[in-house]
Amino acid sequence: MANAIYTFDLLGVAVFAISGALAAAERRMDILTFILFGTITGIGGGTLRDLLLNTDRVFWIHDPSYIWVCIGASVATWFFAHHFDSRRRVLLWADALGLALFCVLGTQKALAWDAPAIVAIGMGMMTASFGSLIRDSLLNRPPVLLGPEIYVTAALLGAASFTLLQQFPETATLALPLSMTAAFALRAGALLFDLRLPKYRAGQE
Amino acid sequence: MANAIYTFDLLGVAVFAISGALAAAERRMDILTFILFGTITGIGGGTLRDLLLNTDRVFWIHDPSYIWVCIGASVATWFFAHHFDSRRRVLLWADALGLALFCVLGTQKALAWDAPAIVAIGMGMMTASFGSLIRDSLLNRPPVLLGPEIYVTAALLGAASFTLLQQFPETATLALPLSMTAAFALRAGALLFDLRLPKYRAGQE
Amino acid sequence: MANAIYTFDLLGVAVFAISGALAAAERRMDILTFILFGTITGIGGGTLRDLLLNTDRVFWIHDPSYIWVCIGASVATWFFAHHFDSRRRVLLWADALGLALFCVLGTQKALAWDAPAIVAIGMGMMTASFGSLIRDSLLNRPPVLLGPEIYVTAALLGAASFTLLQQFPETATLALPLSMTAAFALRAGALLFDLRLPKYRAGQE
Repeated sequence: MANAIYTFDLLGVAVFAISGALAAAERRMDILTFILFGTITGIGGGTLRDLLLNTDRVFWIHDPSYIWVCIGASVATWFFAHHFDSRRRVLLWADALGLALFCVLGTQKALAWDAPAIVAIGMGMMTASFGSLIRDSLLNRPPVLLGPEIYVTAALLGAASFTLLQQFPETATLALPLSMTAAFALRAGALLFDLRLPKYRAGQE
Repeated sequence: MANAIYTFDLLGVAVFAISGALAAAERRMDILTFILFGTITGIGGGTLRDLLLNTDRVFWIHDPSYIWVCIGASVATWFFAHHFDSRRRVLLWADALGLALFCVLGTQKALAWDAPAIVAIGMGMMTASFGSLIRDSLLNRPPVLLGPEIYVTAALLGAASFTLLQQFPETATLALPLSMTAAFALRAGALLFDLRLPKYRAGQE
Repeated sequence: MANAIYTFDLLGVAVFAISGALAAAERRMDILTFILFGTITGIGGGTLRDLLLNTDRVFWIHDPSYIWVCIGASVATWFFAHHFDSRRRVLLWADALGLALFCVLGTQKALAWDAPAIVAIGMGMMTASFGSLIRDSLLNRPPVLLGPEIYVTAALLGAASFTLLQQFPETATLALPLSMTAAFALRAGALLFDLRLPKYRAGQE
């Protein structure tokens, strides 16, 4: 279990780092800025989570492998990004995969630190969305998070379903893959079929 | 005293959450984004304060009531915001009330954690303004904080007057309501009468 | 050594505070906003560093002299900024000096807290750039950090050369001034001769 979490965590950091480096590619930045954006996007959400939980040490200070993964993913993006026809599309899908992994892993870590359920769900949503929020803010782009298609809802689904499933011995072992799949499926559906929640209208009712 | 502080704190979180949800209403977001903006604006300032003071646990992890208040206030805003003629006006007044409550409560908490007076005053100003700063940044609006009318000055007045009044036994019991009233009165005056500090001019003297 | 570090640290805070106040001058803000921007820019990078390292207390809560330096530098800027022909130029040079000081001091503090080398270098780069990043974000300006001339590379040079030099007894005493000079020289060269790293091009190779 611990091994699976670690692997998923590194994978989530890597795909978010790729999405950050792709955002730098859109703006034609230099390679150091690729690494900077990749790293901030990759570890941003987990960093805020660890600060708020007041863990002994932020995860990447404890284990610098995360930094190397970010650097590696960013450099790889510099060399290979031009092979993709639509970098924007790849960015959105990398972001979706990172979202699905991190909303569950963030919730899992908060529960492991004895946070109440509602707090753990909030942590999961935040871990999943904070990195991409900084990435888009730095580039002064409209945040993916506030885009019209379902985004936060997918993180909520992943975080809430994991919180529920891990409580029962029958479902605990499958909680991790099931809730990640649910979150990814909803975000993927939103991207493919343009799913949206109803918007606020002034004279509603 | 502890009870009064807790009540004021929940009230401050609620009015800031309303101002955050109203900002989401201006942009016609969906209900989950209402809750997201309400929650970030409601607890943002206090979260930064607790991180900087290095308290054992950020207040809303310790006591999730704050999260529920944010969710409740945001959902209520979704259903009732259209009853108001000028949502922008309501947002500014909710923000002013939150400002008055939080500049004093932030100072009070920093003093309780043995921060020096100048630091406690800074913490009060920051607790009062950080939530609304994130709210406006996320929406890419000019921050209320940097608006032409007096804003930070009102927070400074509340924080400094509380720091002064709580030092003397004669005034300590009234320090909380008096300094909150002073901060609110100054911000209200600024909104009503368009009070401004003199601006920097290049060839001044 | 400890004395030299403290002096450099106060100096770095002062020059960053001046750059923050100059940014407020460009937008014709009032004096309290000068102080606000000066303080945020002056202590922003070090604050994030201390939060991530989970030090007992953020440095300016422990020693409020830093706050007074920020206030003093901001007020001085309010009164003297109009003597300069090109405030933008002064801002860039104050920022360059702050960058050189903080990339090394941030690395030094992280190493003192037993961070691995790659983490310490990242901390140095972050300490040097975070304050100016918030300053520019708040004013909604394109960040100096993302400007075309070399910036992050200079911070990397300072942080990496300090990490290397402080390991050997022969060079440890000179590590601080040498690496600061290297970082400043590179950033100064970038400003004077418009040095740039190659940008990403879509069809590169």
